[in-house]
Amino acid sequence: MDHILSGLPVAAAILEKASKSIEEIKAKGNTPKLAILRVGENPEDLRYERNLIRKGESIGIQVESRVLPLSSSEDDIRAAVWELDEDHSVHGILMFRPLPAGVDEDAICREINPEKDVDGAAEGSLAGVFTGREQGFAPCTARAVMEILKYYGVSLEGKKVTVLGRSLVVGKPLAMMLLAENATVTVCHSKTVDTREETRRADILVTAIGKANMVDKSYVRKEQIVLDVGVSLDPATGRFSGDVNYDEVEPEVASITPLKGGVGAVTTAVLLTQVVEAALRQTRKPSWTD
Amino acid sequence: MDHILSGLPVAAAILEKASKSIEEIKAKGNTPKLAILRVGENPEDLRYERNLIRKGESIGIQVESRVLPLSSSEDDIRAAVWELDEDHSVHGILMFRPLPAGVDEDAICREINPEKDVDGAAEGSLAGVFTGREQGFAPCTARAVMEILKYYGVSLEGKKVTVLGRSLVVGKPLAMMLLAENATVTVCHSKTVDTREETRRADILVTAIGKANMVDKSYVRKEQIVLDVGVSLDPATGRFSGDVNYDEVEPEVASITPLKGGVGAVTTAVLLTQVVEAALRQTRKPSWTD
Repeated sequence: MDHILSGLPVAAAILEKASKSIEEIKAKGNTPKLAILRVGENPEDLRYERNLIRKGESIGIQVESRVLPLSSSEDDIRAAVWELDEDHSVHGILMFRPLPAGVDEDAICREINPEKDVDGAAEGSLAGVFTGREQGFAPCTARAVMEILKYYGVSLEGKKVTVLGRSLVVGKPLAMMLLAENATVTVCHSKTVDTREETRRADILVTAIGKANMVDKSYVRKEQIVLDVGVSLDPATGRFSGDVNYDEVEPEVASITPLKGGVGAVTTAVLLTQVVEAALRQTRKPSWTD
Repeated sequence: MDHILSGLPVAAAILEKASKSIEEIKAKGNTPKLAILRVGENPEDLRYERNLIRKGESIGIQVESRVLPLSSSEDDIRAAVWELDEDHSVHGILMFRPLPAGVDEDAICREINPEKDVDGAAEGSLAGVFTGREQGFAPCTARAVMEILKYYGVSLEGKKVTVLGRSLVVGKPLAMMLLAENATVTVCHSKTVDTREETRRADILVTAIGKANMVDKSYVRKEQIVLDVGVSLDPATGRFSGDVNYDEVEPEVASITPLKGGVGAVTTAVLLTQVVEAALRQTRKPSWTD
């Protein structure tokens, strides 16, 4: 197996497959369209948005941003969601989170049309990933991890996988997806007592905590596969880093995702492919309004 | 801590607390009511039903059974669910599962009014247990395990908990509830390679696989707390047994639930208390129909 698990060929393969579906959709006179709903000007959101627009348009997915001021009320945001829910030209909705303080984010997420919930934020999608039923869409980063493992031929059956982090966007959905592939899954978090013991015993380690460079070589052992999902600002260097101290850990383990061109690159591709999947589901439906 | 973690005082404490709420509900002229929907005559279901009727009525909860023949179609069952959904005298619905082969159980569960979903079967409840949001009701057996741990003062923070089983009624929701209490959680199942390694390293072991007497003393160690959720027929003895070989394991561990008067006794109490909680939510609402 490769030592460096680059996300770039994984993303390319995902988008290559999506391109075929895009042709099918275009043949019917439609264009897959993602609507981004952004409240404010968070630099991280802007970076992801630019990426989506560039990559989306390069393969034939239209990406449109709807931007609301940071001062928006819950009602303003809800109204924007409703408008996108009802716009038949929009197949997928990505709403950047967290929403401004004071806004009930869970309530807003519930307003997203489940058929357009390509970011896996709405209740139906979360219930789907928990139950294993095919409904809604998976949270993109969790699915990106699964796509990387699949692409590099990592069998999960009976493997010990330790997941660092229990968030609703990565840790918990990923644990469910790994269980569905017959891995034995341990979920750790800030209250875990001996985290090193839990990480070192794993065959596969996935870090998703957002603590720059926390995972040093004392957390790993030779035979491991390490996937680093976290991205956060390292106060020591003032630069964005993964959860894994890459320079220290990379020589110690069997395989590892790079910080640049790693999980993040695949996440973008997953989001776009989920837009295409949404468009397929929506355009394949019999239409009685014609 | 007690060596035998009897469920009986746990159940008594839960029902004692429920009794106070029942008084509040009765003072308003209402009676909490559970409707049981049973398709066919499964002996296990009948046993649970008799228990619920007896215990429910002893504390002032009305329990009514609606029985459909095993030959019922999906539409028949759906119609029965709708009727109970709309019956204002019914506060909680327990539908015995599995439903007959050929019936889309997931689809039927989605029809249960989430406010009456006291068995934690509907989508809103499952999403609630996954996200940790207060909505719907927890699957009763998973909550019963949590109630036993709480009653006996077992702190979960930082504890290693191994859960055997990944079902949607116990294993997966229990894993989520344990994580919410800051335990480090490992979920094992039939494809786990070295199950003994995973069970022996735990501080707390919960078995929920339905393999009679599978967990013998080779799976445990002295300091452990063992909670046995499984109940299944042991082909060797022709008798119902837990997942744990009780006689062999009991002397080896710090604490253990008994087969009789164990988790099952608490599950019944949890279901009844969820009926009361449902009735409270429904009767506390402002009524504009008066």
